[in-house]
Amino acid sequence: MPEKWQLLSSKYAFQSPWISLRQDAVRLPNGHELDDYYVVEEHDFVKIFPLTEDDEVVFVRQYKHGLSDVLIELPAGFVEYGEDPLAAAERELREETGYAGRLELAGTFIVDPTRKNTREYVYFGRVAYAGEQQLDHTEDIEVQLVPLRDVWPMIERRQITAMSTISCALLILKRLGI
Amino acid sequence: MPEKWQLLSSKYAFQSPWISLRQDAVRLPNGHELDDYYVVEEHDFVKIFPLTEDDEVVFVRQYKHGLSDVLIELPAGFVEYGEDPLAAAERELREETGYAGRLELAGTFIVDPTRKNTREYVYFGRVAYAGEQQLDHTEDIEVQLVPLRDVWPMIERRQITAMSTISCALLILKRLGI
Repeated sequence: MPEKWQLLSSKYAFQSPWISLRQDAVRLPNGHELDDYYVVEEHDFVKIFPLTEDDEVVFVRQYKHGLSDVLIELPAGFVEYGEDPLAAAERELREETGYAGRLELAGTFIVDPTRKNTREYVYFGRVAYAGEQQLDHTEDIEVQLVPLRDVWPMIERRQITAMSTISCALLILKRLGI
Repeated sequence: MPEKWQLLSSKYAFQSPWISLRQDAVRLPNGHELDDYYVVEEHDFVKIFPLTEDDEVVFVRQYKHGLSDVLIELPAGFVEYGEDPLAAAERELREETGYAGRLELAGTFIVDPTRKNTREYVYFGRVAYAGEQQLDHTEDIEVQLVPLRDVWPMIERRQITAMSTISCALLILKRLGI
């Protein structure tokens, strides 16, 4: 049975409000020591699968600077420190898409256990158009409604490629029996 | 239609062989400038869904220091710079589990387009036991065979929680019609 590593000491190699890098010194169960295991610290985030009464899924298209390209994803956003994930999901959905509705937690994923302690909270809900998007000056988001039956073919054709969107979408499609 | 951002300048806020943090100064299409957009640079990785002739899936259990806990995942590993992802998948599967077989690419996911340009290459294949694990001194990996029909119930019961394992497993289950 694999055992936990022992934390010997910890310091920050880099800190910012959005992302920090922690350098841990650790002792493994076999006695081996590592003095530079890097752990990324960032906000948890929410991912939403919003379905309209017409069985259309509300996707967003935007430029993402990590990838350096525009891509289509399910709506998402960071959870502020101390914020309830459901409140974050409702806020992000309304701001990014103009849609709103009652959301329920469909799953909680560990984003990258090798490097981070970050969680992704997955929400599902029936939504309706509630008014214009509320974007800040760094956001340029195009809403794209995708018929529910087209989501899996778009994953198969590699038109949907982001891992967090694929994991969320496949979880909900499976639950819906699609 | 969302437009790309313009890269003004780029420097490293932190560098190591395993993970680096790049600080980009960028100009948005609306003219707004940001001088500290952080991008994580790390290796691409492979994730494998290995299925035995008895329809058992080869999972691994190990301690992950980002999460600070032991968890069950599909076998995975980093792609070395310049390495063919298929070769990385075959190597990691053999080393971590002792199983081997002919693997085929089942998908390529963008891991986190907000922060990274990293790819995850997903492989599927029929495998057989080929001999003992070949672990290095930082690895303590327990192989766990899971009947194919139990994979989805384990996701539903939140016994399988890692996003990269869930996205890979749900993709393959869907393709297999399970």
